Amino acid sequence: MSAAKDAGFMAEALRLARQAGDMGEVPVGAVVVLGDKIIGRGYNRRETDRDPLSHAEINAIREASAHLGDWRLSDCTLYVTLEPCPMCTGAIINARIGRVVWGADDPKAGCFGSVCSLCEMPFNHRPRTTRGCMAEESSALLSAFFARLRD
Amino acid sequence: MSAAKDAGFMAEALRLARQAGDMGEVPVGAVVVLGDKIIGRGYNRRETDRDPLSHAEINAIREASAHLGDWRLSDCTLYVTLEPCPMCTGAIINARIGRVVWGADDPKAGCFGSVCSLCEMPFNHRPRTTRGCMAEESSALLSAFFARLRD
Repeated sequence: MSAAKDAGFMAEALRLARQAGDMGEVPVGAVVVLGDKIIGRGYNRRETDRDPLSHAEINAIREASAHLGDWRLSDCTLYVTLEPCPMCTGAIINARIGRVVWGADDPKAGCFGSVCSLCEMPFNHRPRTTRGCMAEESSALLSAFFARLRD
Repeated sequence: MSAAKDAGFMAEALRLARQAGDMGEVPVGAVVVLGDKIIGRGYNRRETDRDPLSHAEINAIREASAHLGDWRLSDCTLYVTLEPCPMCTGAIINARIGRVVWGADDPKAGCFGSVCSLCEMPFNHRPRTTRGCMAEESSALLSAFFARLRD
C-alpha cells in the first residue's frame, strides 16, 4: 500500500474522529480496509453508548467482521488515528488483522510501543505496523478537544 | 467476598461455559457481579457470532454496562472460567472493574501472569485479583472440549 493510499484511508478515519469530537467524545476514528475498500468504520462512542468497549477500533472491527461473516480479518488493514489501547490491541490480535496503521502515539495507553509492545509478546498473531500516518492532524484534533474541555 | 460466595458465582460462569461448549464454542463463561447480584452474563460465541470480539468477558461486561447505564464498573467483580486474553484484560482496565476472579490459567494468551501481566503495567487502572477459583472444573471442561475436537 502506498503512502498516498494510506493517507487517503487515514483521512476517512480522521473524519470519523471529528464526528466523535462533535458528539463530545474523545476524537478517535478508525477504518478497516480490505483491498481498496473500506469494510468497517468506527469512532469512539464510549460516553454516548455508555459502553467501555465502544472504542473506534472495536466498532470498526465489528462492522468489518459482520461484513465478511468471519471473525478472521487476516487480509485487512486497520487505520486508526490514535495508537491502540490494550483492549483494541488485543482485539487486533484476536481478529488476526494483517496490518495496523496509526496516527498519533498515546503515551498513556498505547500498546504499540508507548506503554508496552503487546504485539511483540508471544501471542499467536503479530500484525505488520506503520506508525505516525497523519500524526499531526490526529494530535491537533485531540489537543483542540482537550483544550475545549479545560475552557 | 468469601471463598464460598466466589465459588457460587464461578459455578454460574461454569454453567455458561458449558452452554458455549454445547454450541461448539471453546467453553469459557463469565459473570459480572455487583454486591450479591449478577448484572452481566456472557459466554464465548466467537464462531456463532462470527465476531472476534465475542468473548465471554466482553459479553458479560457489555451486559453489565447496559444494566448500569455506565461504562464504569468500579464496584464490580468479574468471574471468568479462564484467565483473560489481552483484549479482555484491556476491557477490564477500560471498564475499571474492581476485582477479577478467574479459574484456569491460560498459558497461550493469559494476561494475568501467564504470557504477561498487563495489569501491572502503568495503565490507569489495576484490579484486585484472585487466581484459581474452581480451576480444576474449568480445566476439565476445556480438556474434554479439545479432546472431542481431536476425536
